[in-house]
Amino acid sequence: MLTLFHAPKTCALASHIALEEAGATYEGRLVDFGSAEQTKPEYLAINPKGRVPALVTDRGVLTETPAILAFIAQTHAAAQLAPLDDPFAFAELLAFATYLCSTVHVAHAHRVRGYRWADDPAAIEAMKTKVPETVGACFALIEQKMFRGPWAMGERYTIADPYLFTIASWLEGDGVDPAAFPQVFDHRRRMAERPAVRRALAMEGA
Amino acid sequence: MLTLFHAPKTCALASHIALEEAGATYEGRLVDFGSAEQTKPEYLAINPKGRVPALVTDRGVLTETPAILAFIAQTHAAAQLAPLDDPFAFAELLAFATYLCSTVHVAHAHRVRGYRWADDPAAIEAMKTKVPETVGACFALIEQKMFRGPWAMGERYTIADPYLFTIASWLEGDGVDPAAFPQVFDHRRRMAERPAVRRALAMEGA
Repeated sequence: MLTLFHAPKTCALASHIALEEAGATYEGRLVDFGSAEQTKPEYLAINPKGRVPALVTDRGVLTETPAILAFIAQTHAAAQLAPLDDPFAFAELLAFATYLCSTVHVAHAHRVRGYRWADDPAAIEAMKTKVPETVGACFALIEQKMFRGPWAMGERYTIADPYLFTIASWLEGDGVDPAAFPQVFDHRRRMAERPAVRRALAMEGA
Repeated sequence: MLTLFHAPKTCALASHIALEEAGATYEGRLVDFGSAEQTKPEYLAINPKGRVPALVTDRGVLTETPAILAFIAQTHAAAQLAPLDDPFAFAELLAFATYLCSTVHVAHAHRVRGYRWADDPAAIEAMKTKVPETVGACFALIEQKMFRGPWAMGERYTIADPYLFTIASWLEGDGVDPAAFPQVFDHRRRMAERPAVRRALAMEGA
């Protein structure tokens, strides 16, 4: 049995959708960011990083979206969510997920969590100001160089798709017009229609 | 044949060491950051992100350290650099690498590349000021919750080890005393003695 600790409007949505796409047996547990539940001892005992997602398995707890997505794909091979028998294609998929995690998500985080990297309120404000530019540059790279179509990695739907969908859903909030990236925009529309995506969003109360 | 594009004192060292540990057939190509070679059209044709590492393979180019490390481990299985037959242990390893990439490396980057996230010189200075605290907090988590010993993931040396070594080698520059983290400090010392690490460092001119 798997338990996904998640919160609405976070990157945990990617893992949530992947579990639904995989047909996994799991339960979702909402972490209440409103009461800062992620910083309380009970949650820190599950994930000492104080963040979501965390996936509790029979073997222990997994964190970090690319790792959780890879685990879901590898343990639900029938769902064909990753090219498990092709190390090069698998590494390309990991590279896509890693870029979303370490560059795109990080660029976005400077709008809402600038306090992580500076204490001065003026500096935090200066970070916010640049987010439309930095997030826009990331999505320009995705649109022009990384996205293959019809899915992120090409003909086959993979774990990169729910992850891209999740972060692309933040574009308007980040001050970026998604229409500037037609392939990503169309991908987001098609993703939103998938039953797995609808189920995950409904479980998040969205 | 593999070609690793790298530069001294960057995270590319992790991939370089892993290639040496794997006994891979490869050549190293230094990218001259001094003349901003990574921003020139010739290099952007290889890696449009304008960063290192990039690993050129017969199938195409791979970027992002966790992806390159996973590829090296999967294509050089005899070197046993990852638990390839255990999806949970493999995901734990990916989670460790992802944390280094998306949180620790990012915390470090606010000292030397704050211009990525703000334009105001005072804001960039404010980011620098907080780096000893943020990088220190990352390494406290690694020391207390993540590092298993004697290697990062436990009894077996894995691709997490050269990656941890690489980022831990930046501690003094980030204003953090490595002696505050005895396990990480000892790991760094033992890593520096490995022939593969010495060869990679020698090829970087270090």
